[in-house]
Amino acid sequence: MIGSMMERPLLVSALLEHAARWHGKTSVVSQRAPQEGVTLGWADIDQRARRLAQALIRLGVRPGDRVGTLGWNHHRHLEAYYAIPGMGAICHTLNPRLFPDQLVQILHDAEDVGLLVDSGLLPLLLTLENLGVRLPWVIVMGEPGEARAPLLGTWFDYEVLLAEEDGGFNWPDWPEDQAAGLCFTSGTTGRPKGVVYSHRSTVLHAMSVALPDSLGFSACDSVLPVVPLFHANAWGFPHAAALVGAKLVLPGPWLDGATLYALLEREEVTISAGVPTVWRGLMSFLQAQEVKLHHLRLLGVGGSACPSMLVRYFEQEQKVTVRPGWGMTETSPVAALASPKRAQAELSGEARWHWLEKSGRPPFGVDMRLRDSEGREVNWDGKTPGHLEVRGPWICEHYWKEARETERAWFPTGDVATLDEEGFLQITDRVKDLIKSGGEWISSVQVEQAALLHPVLREAAVIGVPDPHWGERPLLIMVLEAGRVVEEEELRQHLARHVPRWSVPDGFLTVDSLPYTATGKVDKVALRQRYGEYTGG
Amino acid sequence: MIGSMMERPLLVSALLEHAARWHGKTSVVSQRAPQEGVTLGWADIDQRARRLAQALIRLGVRPGDRVGTLGWNHHRHLEAYYAIPGMGAICHTLNPRLFPDQLVQILHDAEDVGLLVDSGLLPLLLTLENLGVRLPWVIVMGEPGEARAPLLGTWFDYEVLLAEEDGGFNWPDWPEDQAAGLCFTSGTTGRPKGVVYSHRSTVLHAMSVALPDSLGFSACDSVLPVVPLFHANAWGFPHAAALVGAKLVLPGPWLDGATLYALLEREEVTISAGVPTVWRGLMSFLQAQEVKLHHLRLLGVGGSACPSMLVRYFEQEQKVTVRPGWGMTETSPVAALASPKRAQAELSGEARWHWLEKSGRPPFGVDMRLRDSEGREVNWDGKTPGHLEVRGPWICEHYWKEARETERAWFPTGDVATLDEEGFLQITDRVKDLIKSGGEWISSVQVEQAALLHPVLREAAVIGVPDPHWGERPLLIMVLEAGRVVEEEELRQHLARHVPRWSVPDGFLTVDSLPYTATGKVDKVALRQRYGEYTGG
Ligand SMILES: Nc1ncnc2c1ncn2[C@@H]1O[C@H](COP(=O)(O)OP(=O)(O)OP(=O)(O)O)[C@@H](O)[C@H]1O
Ligand SMILES: Nc1ncnc2c1ncn2[C@@H]1O[C@H](COP(=O)(O)OP(=O)(O)OP(=O)(O)O)[C@@H](O)[C@H]1O
Ligand SMILES: [Mg+2]
Ligand SMILES: [Mg+2]
Repeated sequence: MIGSMMERPLLVSALLEHAARWHGKTSVVSQRAPQEGVTLGWADIDQRARRLAQALIRLGVRPGDRVGTLGWNHHRHLEAYYAIPGMGAICHTLNPRLFPDQLVQILHDAEDVGLLVDSGLLPLLLTLENLGVRLPWVIVMGEPGEARAPLLGTWFDYEVLLAEEDGGFNWPDWPEDQAAGLCFTSGTTGRPKGVVYSHRSTVLHAMSVALPDSLGFSACDSVLPVVPLFHANAWGFPHAAALVGAKLVLPGPWLDGATLYALLEREEVTISAGVPTVWRGLMSFLQAQEVKLHHLRLLGVGGSACPSMLVRYFEQEQKVTVRPGWGMTETSPVAALASPKRAQAELSGEARWHWLEKSGRPPFGVDMRLRDSEGREVNWDGKTPGHLEVRGPWICEHYWKEARETERAWFPTGDVATLDEEGFLQITDRVKDLIKSGGEWISSVQVEQAALLHPVLREAAVIGVPDPHWGERPLLIMVLEAGRVVEEEELRQHLARHVPRWSVPDGFLTVDSLPYTATGKVDKVALRQRYGEYTGG
Repeated sequence: MIGSMMERPLLVSALLEHAARWHGKTSVVSQRAPQEGVTLGWADIDQRARRLAQALIRLGVRPGDRVGTLGWNHHRHLEAYYAIPGMGAICHTLNPRLFPDQLVQILHDAEDVGLLVDSGLLPLLLTLENLGVRLPWVIVMGEPGEARAPLLGTWFDYEVLLAEEDGGFNWPDWPEDQAAGLCFTSGTTGRPKGVVYSHRSTVLHAMSVALPDSLGFSACDSVLPVVPLFHANAWGFPHAAALVGAKLVLPGPWLDGATLYALLEREEVTISAGVPTVWRGLMSFLQAQEVKLHHLRLLGVGGSACPSMLVRYFEQEQKVTVRPGWGMTETSPVAALASPKRAQAELSGEARWHWLEKSGRPPFGVDMRLRDSEGREVNWDGKTPGHLEVRGPWICEHYWKEARETERAWFPTGDVATLDEEGFLQITDRVKDLIKSGGEWISSVQVEQAALLHPVLREAAVIGVPDPHWGERPLLIMVLEAGRVVEEEELRQHLARHVPRWSVPDGFLTVDSLPYTATGKVDKVALRQRYGEYTGG
C-alpha cells in the first residue's frame, strides 16, 4: 500500500524556484574584481537562469546532453548550475586548474554538446582548441560586451543570448533520478573518473549540508563557497543556500588572504568552506595584519586532512568554529563532518580539539564501514585501520560510462581510516599512499599532521622510498617558514612524541614548494616521480 | 539519462538504524511518573524495536496492515513508531483524548489488525469494547508484569512479547512511497479524516524539521516533544531526533507546569514544541514560582495561533526563542515556521515580534499560494486574505479511502490567510469560522489575538451569531484571570485599537472555561451549539 502523499520529485530547479519565491530579494553577491561586486537577488538569478535555459533549448540542447562549464565562482556560473539541469541537460563542470591534456581527455569522455567559459579563461580554451578540441558552440561568460572570443568555432556572448530571451519559461518536471550534474575526480591518483549526480542526490545532499551538524545554513546567514563551483557541487553551497534562502557570496578567482578577508568582512559572511591551503593563506594574512574576522562563525575544511594549527588558530584567535570534514567527488561530496555530540559539546581546548581534528562523523544518509583485507569489519577502537566503504542516496554507484556489472551495495573509497568508540572517523591514508615498512603500515597522513605541529614547518608531505632492509621507509618532504631552519634530530624527537617509533621518517628533505593538484591537494604522484629514489643527502 | 548514484530508499527504519549505529549511547529518557524516568540509548530502542517487529510478524501482521497505537509519549510508543513501519505495516496512532464514539468510528475506518495500548489507558479501551469494538489482539504497554488486562479479547504483555524474541532481525527494504503511518485529523470541524504518511514523506519531513530555520536539531541537543506521538508525527520529533542523534525526552502524560518544568531542567532540554495551552500552563507556573529555565533555547508553538504574550514572556523573561508555526495533520504537520530572515534577524522587541507572531514561512519542500474566490492569486500585501493551498512531498494528496478521481496539484487547506511582502504567512481564520458581517469578512483569529492582549483575559474565542441587520456579528466569549473583572466598554476600546471597526464584537460573554478539542484547540462547533443563538445579556 502506498501513502497518500503528493508525488513531487526532488528537483534542482525546485531549489531555485523556492529561493526566488520566498527569498527573492535576498542577495547573491558576485565579486568581479577585488573590492568590487555586483549584487542580484535570488529572483534575478532565477529569471536569468530561465532565460539561459531558453537559450540552450534554442541552441538545440536536449535532455540528457552534457553542457560543459569552465569558470570560477560567480553568478553566471551559478545561473548555469540551475539552468542546465533545469532544462533537463547535465551540467558538466570542468576544473580550469587541470592540465590541458586532462581537460582534453575529459571533454572527449563527456562528449559535451557545448561549453560555457569565463572570458578570463579564453586563453585556456584556445590552448584546448590547439590541442584539437572542437566544440559545437561556446558561450562566453563576461560582463555585457566583454566577450571578444578569438576562438576557432562558433561562439556567443552570454549576455546577448540572455537579452534575446523573455524568461517566460516554466521549469519542467523530470524524474528525480535523472542526471543533473557530471564531475570528474581530481586525478590525484590517476586518470579522473566521471561521477553523475542526479536531481535527487543533489537535493538530498543540499538538505543534509544545511543541517546544524553539517554547515548549518539559515536564512540569516551569508555564505561564501571558497570551494569551487567547478568541483563536486562546491560542497552543496549553491544548492543549500537556495534551499534555505541564505545570502550567497561568490568570490571569483580572488582567494588570496587580503581579498578574501575584505570580502568576508564586507559581505558579513557567517559560513565558509574550502581546502586547508586557502585557510592557511587567510591565516597568514590575519596574523601579519593583526586583524579580526567580525562575522564569520563557521569554517568547513576538507579535501585533505585539516592541519591542527588551523583549528587552533581560528578557534582561539578568531572565535570561529572550525569544522573539518571528509568527502570525495564520489560522495557529492559531504560525507562526514567533525561536529560535536553531547559528550564533546561541553569540552574545551585540547579535549575539544581531540575530536574536532578527526575527519568527522557521517550525517544521516551516509553509512560507513571499515573492513580489513579479509573483508571483516574492524573494531571501533580508534586504532585499527580498515578500508573505508560508504553507501547512501548521494554516494556514487558506478562511474560515468563504467559498465555496471553487478549492483554495488558499498562504494570502496580507496581511503584507509579508523573509527573510534564515539563513531568519529579518522582518515589515515589513501590505500595508494600507504607506506609498508617491515611488517607495519605507516600512515603518511598521520606523520604529516604530526610534522605540521612543529612551528617551523609550513607544508609537509610523506612518501615511501625503497629500502633494502624494510622494503619501504618514509621520507618527509617539507617547506619551512620563511627564514627558519630546523635540525633533523629535533624533528625526529618531535615526531617520536606523536607517532609510533617505526613511523618516524629516516629521510628529511627541505624544498621550496610542494606540488599541488588542481583541487589543492599535495601531488604525491609528482613527489614520487621526483623523489621516489631518494636515498639521503 | 539517469544519474550514477546509489538507489537507496528513504526509510523510517533507516533513521533508527543511523541513530543506533552512530549515536547508540545517546539517551532516550522516558518519564514514567512525575520526577521518575527510565533512560535507554538509541541502540537499545533499535534493539527493542527489532524484537517488537519480530513479535508483530509472529502475530501475523503483514505489510500494509494497520496496527493501532493508543498511548502517551514514552519509549514503548517510540519503539512501536519504528517497529511497525519497519516491518512493513502502517502505524496508526489514535488520540486518547477523542470522544469514544470518534475512536470507534476511526478504528472501524482504519480496520486495524491489532492495537498497542498503554496500561493506563485500559479503562478507555474497555469503554470502546463496550461500544462494540473487537480487535484481533491487543498488546498492553507497561512495565514488566504491570499488564493486567481485564479485556474481552486476546491480549499480550508488551515486555513478555519482547522477551520471547531475539532481536536478530534486519530491517527490510521497502519502496519509499510505501505507507508508514496513518493519522486522523483532529475532528475540529467535522468527522476526522485519515492521512497516510509514506516512508519518503516521513524522512523528508524529518530532515526539514531538523534544519536551523525549522527546529534546528543537532546531536548536542536534548529535545522534548510535548506534542503527542499520537498526532501527526509529533511534529517529526521522534524521527528528527534519530536523524541527528539528539537526546530525546518523552514526558508521558504529565504536562502540568510543575512536572514539565522539573523535567525540562533535569534533562537539560534545549528544544521543545507544543500547543499554546501547554505553554500557557508552564508560563503560569514559572511566573508563580519565579523560576527560570536554564537550558531551553527554542520553543515551537503550533496547532492554533500563538498568543502574543507567550512570545513576549518566553523571549523577554526566559531568553527562549519562540518559534510559532503553522501546519495540519495533512502537512505531516510542519509547513511553516516563523523564523527570521536576514531582514528580521537584527530586529529586537516589537519590531522582532511583528514578524515572529505571524504564522511563519514555508521551508523548502512546501509551496503555498493564496487564491480568492475567483481562483486568482491574491497580492502579497499582508492584508488581502485568500484561501490557502499547499503542495509538496510531505503534503497530503488525498484522504484514507478517499476515491482519487483527478490528481490534486494543490491541497486546499480550508484555512484563510494573508502573505506579506517578505513571504510571511498569517492565518486569519478557518473558512468554516469566518464571520460574514454586512459585506465584510471578520477574522475570528484576529479578534481573539487582539482580545488576548488585554491583561485580564486568559482565554478568548470569537464566533458569529445571527444579526437581523448585518447577517452575522461577532461574539467574544472569554475566560478571565482569577479574581479579575473588566468593563465591556474598556474591552471595546481596547479592541478598537487593534482591529478594524467592524470587527469589534457586539456581544461579550464571560464563562468559567472554554471547551477544547482532543488536540488542544478551542472547540468552536461546541461554542456555536451552545451560544450560537446568543443575543445579549
Ligand atoms: N578530511 C580528509 N582527510 C584526509 N583526506 C581527505 C579528507 N577529505 C578528502 N580527502 C581525500 O580526498 C579524496 C577525494 O578527493 P577528490 O574526490 O577530489 O579526488 P581525488 O581522490 O583526490 O582524485 P582521484 O580520485 O582522481 O585520484 C578522498 O578520497 C581522500 O583521500
Ligand atoms: N499557527 C496557527 N494559527 C492558526 N491556526 C492554526 C495554526 N496552526 C494550525 N492551525 C489550525 O489547525 C488546523 C490543523 O489542525 P489539525 O490537522 O490538527 O486538525 P483540525 O483541522 O483541527 O481538525 P479537522 O480537520 O478534523 O477539522 C489548521 O488547518 C488550522 O486551522
Ligand atoms: Mg579519489
Ligand atoms: Mg483540518
